[in-house]
Amino acid sequence: MISKESIENYFQSLQDEICNGLEKADGKGNFQEDLWKREAGGGGRTRIISNGDVIEKGGVNFSSVFGPCPDFLRKEAGLAENEEAEFHATGVSLVIHPVNPMIPIIHMNVRYLKAGNLEWFGGGIDLTPHYIFEEDATFFHNHLKSVCDTHNPAYYTEFKKWADDYFFIKHRNETRGIGGIFFDRLAAKDSISIEDRFNFVQTIGNSFLGAYLPLIEKNRNKTYTEANRQWQLLRRGRYVEFNLVYDRGTKFGLLTNGRTESILMSLPPTACWEYMNIPGKDSLEEKTLSLLRKGIDWAK
Amino acid sequence: MISKESIENYFQSLQDEICNGLEKADGKGNFQEDLWKREAGGGGRTRIISNGDVIEKGGVNFSSVFGPCPDFLRKEAGLAENEEAEFHATGVSLVIHPVNPMIPIIHMNVRYLKAGNLEWFGGGIDLTPHYIFEEDATFFHNHLKSVCDTHNPAYYTEFKKWADDYFFIKHRNETRGIGGIFFDRLAAKDSISIEDRFNFVQTIGNSFLGAYLPLIEKNRNKTYTEANRQWQLLRRGRYVEFNLVYDRGTKFGLLTNGRTESILMSLPPTACWEYMNIPGKDSLEEKTLSLLRKGIDWAK
Repeated sequence: MISKESIENYFQSLQDEICNGLEKADGKGNFQEDLWKREAGGGGRTRIISNGDVIEKGGVNFSSVFGPCPDFLRKEAGLAENEEAEFHATGVSLVIHPVNPMIPIIHMNVRYLKAGNLEWFGGGIDLTPHYIFEEDATFFHNHLKSVCDTHNPAYYTEFKKWADDYFFIKHRNETRGIGGIFFDRLAAKDSISIEDRFNFVQTIGNSFLGAYLPLIEKNRNKTYTEANRQWQLLRRGRYVEFNLVYDRGTKFGLLTNGRTESILMSLPPTACWEYMNIPGKDSLEEKTLSLLRKGIDWAK
Repeated sequence: MISKESIENYFQSLQDEICNGLEKADGKGNFQEDLWKREAGGGGRTRIISNGDVIEKGGVNFSSVFGPCPDFLRKEAGLAENEEAEFHATGVSLVIHPVNPMIPIIHMNVRYLKAGNLEWFGGGIDLTPHYIFEEDATFFHNHLKSVCDTHNPAYYTEFKKWADDYFFIKHRNETRGIGGIFFDRLAAKDSISIEDRFNFVQTIGNSFLGAYLPLIEKNRNKTYTEANRQWQLLRRGRYVEFNLVYDRGTKFGLLTNGRTESILMSLPPTACWEYMNIPGKDSLEEKTLSLLRKGIDWAK
């Protein structure tokens, strides 16, 4: 049995730690904080950074909402017809859109839900490079694998596949990026307690800066052309397509009257669409497209 | 009984007429045509214009697809369990994103569907100004009203309300633009034959240039600032949100393996998202937002 407070405290301190780390790496931009309340119970702490040296736009959001269990959760929560029950959902969500096209977009989410008999953690970290550099992809996946391995040697493979399947833009037949790990509804099971799940999610959350800051440092001073920038804007267009057409968190938020400005912080500052853009033969862009598919074993 | 050919011929000639009219108005841009075939039957004629004097990006698409009736239509088409039946869907769809923020975005769709016992026409024209000028809005709605009135004095009111309800961005609590007319599943009914429906849809299609070209001419030479351009990009962001989250045609196309590049021609060349953009007091932007709501009687 974990207290609501201990989970919220962890998520809030994670948000602090990540914002501090990103501000330090950026060197110029600062997070602006908005506190908001939800009428039916709870609220959040939205933090947005824009026009930094490294980060063009990003958000690192904490929220904790509670109240009467919403209808769509009642069945899964095993509630009887007129049984009253509370739900509690809390977590941290972040998306970073960098200035330099050679730095990848990153997304992380860690979350907890309790409703009736239901109690689980979910989350993941995934990377969306505008240009895929194999050594960066390998570094990122190796990092996630070593983090997962401290808990269970089967986790990385399982959660990596889950990310491949989830972050897929069906109408483009491409993955959103090079994936990462994704896991959902991790409840207590067999010898794994809910405390173990919480520990795992903390390990993932705490690994974020170690996954991303090296990729910032390695790529922040790379020069780029107008054509590289234009390609970045097209890739951001695909990011918008994924988030608005497929992403469950976004859909769920918008359809349940969540705080729109906090949910849509994931959208890029600028994005482009061009009819039938086809990269030149043997270009870096063509290579990137060829690597946007499921099942690539990046970890070495 | 209308022949498949006569409907297709009309839609193709409408596409020709509109492309010619828009090219002439633009004076610089030309439509590029792609012919495509659908494996299961039919195909289309996608025409895209970009980097014109007036039009930054636009598409005017014709398609005609047919084959075995898809499952999701069988029940509505009144088919028995193993009854074989063909379907045929054809139409013209267009979206124009102008360069100058003072010229509105426009969208039109006219379509025909036949499957089993089902046979209907649908469509509509609606306007999305980045800046709402009341005289333009009134001109546009007066034009649509007079066009509708030639068929039935009740149509404009009914189809205008339908557009208000359809082109609504729920999570923003705003309409996409100032609406127009929208109608769906207009089948033969009482004294109205399917030929009458076809006549009505032709009247709407033929009214397009008369609705839009005057708005181009009136606004094309207006000067605008960088701030106006930025506002245009934010409004285009909302257009993307509507099309990817709510638009039935887009969703339907993407989820049924339509030709992605033709479907997503509706997306703007460039769009922006900014956290918590709130227009200044008494600004044109604030006035525009205040007019993005249902139930405004623009026609005089």
